[in-house]
Amino acid sequence: MPTSLTPKLRGVLSPVLTPFEADRTPSVPRFIEHCRTLLNHDVGLAIFGTNSEATSMSVKEKRALLDAILVAGMPAARMMPGVGACNLDDTVELARHAVAAGCGGVLMLPPFFYKGVSEEGLFRTFAGMIDAVGDARLRVYLYHIPPVTQIGISLSLIERLLKAFPNVIAGVKDSAGDWQNTAAMLKEFGKDGFDVFAGSETGLVETMRHGGAGVISATANINPGGIAGLLRDWQHDDADARQAALNQVRATFGQFPMIAAMKAAMASGLNDPVWNNVRAPLVELDRIQRETLLRQLDALGFQLYRGQVEEAAAAH
Amino acid sequence: MPTSLTPKLRGVLSPVLTPFEADRTPSVPRFIEHCRTLLNHDVGLAIFGTNSEATSMSVKEKRALLDAILVAGMPAARMMPGVGACNLDDTVELARHAVAAGCGGVLMLPPFFYKGVSEEGLFRTFAGMIDAVGDARLRVYLYHIPPVTQIGISLSLIERLLKAFPNVIAGVKDSAGDWQNTAAMLKEFGKDGFDVFAGSETGLVETMRHGGAGVISATANINPGGIAGLLRDWQHDDADARQAALNQVRATFGQFPMIAAMKAAMASGLNDPVWNNVRAPLVELDRIQRETLLRQLDALGFQLYRGQVEEAAAAH
Repeated sequence: MPTSLTPKLRGVLSPVLTPFEADRTPSVPRFIEHCRTLLNHDVGLAIFGTNSEATSMSVKEKRALLDAILVAGMPAARMMPGVGACNLDDTVELARHAVAAGCGGVLMLPPFFYKGVSEEGLFRTFAGMIDAVGDARLRVYLYHIPPVTQIGISLSLIERLLKAFPNVIAGVKDSAGDWQNTAAMLKEFGKDGFDVFAGSETGLVETMRHGGAGVISATANINPGGIAGLLRDWQHDDADARQAALNQVRATFGQFPMIAAMKAAMASGLNDPVWNNVRAPLVELDRIQRETLLRQLDALGFQLYRGQVEEAAAAH
Repeated sequence: MPTSLTPKLRGVLSPVLTPFEADRTPSVPRFIEHCRTLLNHDVGLAIFGTNSEATSMSVKEKRALLDAILVAGMPAARMMPGVGACNLDDTVELARHAVAAGCGGVLMLPPFFYKGVSEEGLFRTFAGMIDAVGDARLRVYLYHIPPVTQIGISLSLIERLLKAFPNVIAGVKDSAGDWQNTAAMLKEFGKDGFDVFAGSETGLVETMRHGGAGVISATANINPGGIAGLLRDWQHDDADARQAALNQVRATFGQFPMIAAMKAAMASGLNDPVWNNVRAPLVELDRIQRETLLRQLDALGFQLYRGQVEEAAAAH
């Protein structure tokens, strides 16, 4: 149940991959099972992120998936559902649902259809959402991912939002792919209880060294133990070596369309081809891509849900 | 009522501006009145376009606005609602509603969140929508607007869709802002009953000379008579001069954020400040912008719903 004492979201979260049946409806049992595995590896649930194909799902479908993991008994305090949409009604509906369920926070994209919009317009969007949800328990994490949205969350926008809504604006996920920007966010706002999450595990150790709250990592879907392990041990002597190993796994997936590649690894590791399915406009890997990926992962000693990094740590 | 003899959409259509009350709910009476005025000027209703702030509205809001103009007695055959969304459920729901109402066609954006998607993925999106709507009366116009979506509709995608769905794929709105592309679409597909609409009136005469079906023009919201008049008279001797005059009006609006500028002209011309309202992330013009725009329009002899071009034609 929601309480004001809900612990803050911290550490590693994953934008949970959404499994789809052959007819492309969400596979609820697979989703529940995958979420449970992630939690067992100490990875929080940033459901409905970019890597979840969230914008390819309706609000109704997302509400049903959130309800399914709540009914399955998973702790809402470990969930950060993505709620951003181009229209405010959809954002508000999903955010209200998440707040009522006691979710640790919500991750909000800016509206991403119109390009070149003003900071004033973006401020009004976030302010309008916060006012419309109208619940003191709401915690909003800003989602900065300009390579996809083309619409960024500037430092001055964060400053203005923090001033206007100090108890609601809880942090940011920085997926700009630019460490200098993450560093600037940490420097400017990290001390005010504003939680900066790196948008990928490639910046894990650096982010933690500079006071970050954690990482929200796509690859944590398939390498949860390795990434959560390094988050725990980032002050250890071998942190840089383990970071390099994590980066190698990430780079292997990054040669292919990421979502389809991670799903191919899921399908292979669980021996369950349904996991290959993606929704249009995405396309699953073709046979050659899949074989190339799996061969490279084999060469790295990678196993689903148990990456090389975790094994290396266990061997210490 | 829908019939297979519904005349094809032709001529000038306008992405109808959506009026919003102070609380940013759609103003239904103003919407009805504006749609009626456009029809009276022989301008068809491409409701829910980019200039309608369509992506800033929920499916529920769009269904209600479509119902309102149908109940008001406007002819569905003159309507081309925009139905594109990032998720297929929303697209299909609105498209089914439009088809059941007898709309002349629907205009469909590609999904626009993920960037760099493949032609195969876009083909699957359109095919999935057509299959899910599952109605022989469906006519789909493809919406090519890469400056906004960053995702284009290539010639080879059109070819593939036409081959797979010859009775459904009805045409394209080309808002690429590149005459060479419009010319290529006309050359490749214009002869097959595939209707090419220019995305702006700046290409009106050229498009008609090369066999286009018409234009879908934002500025037709505020200059409907001028643009519809030139569409009627594009073979007249004064067509190029009138095209140049239209372009001047367009360029005047184009100095400002277009949607806010057109709404400012509506508010001024109708003496109804409610028309200034836009939804976030857009922002209305500030006082200086508004005064500058209105002064420049005055200098052109522009009047709302009765542009200089229409007057010039009447003076002949």
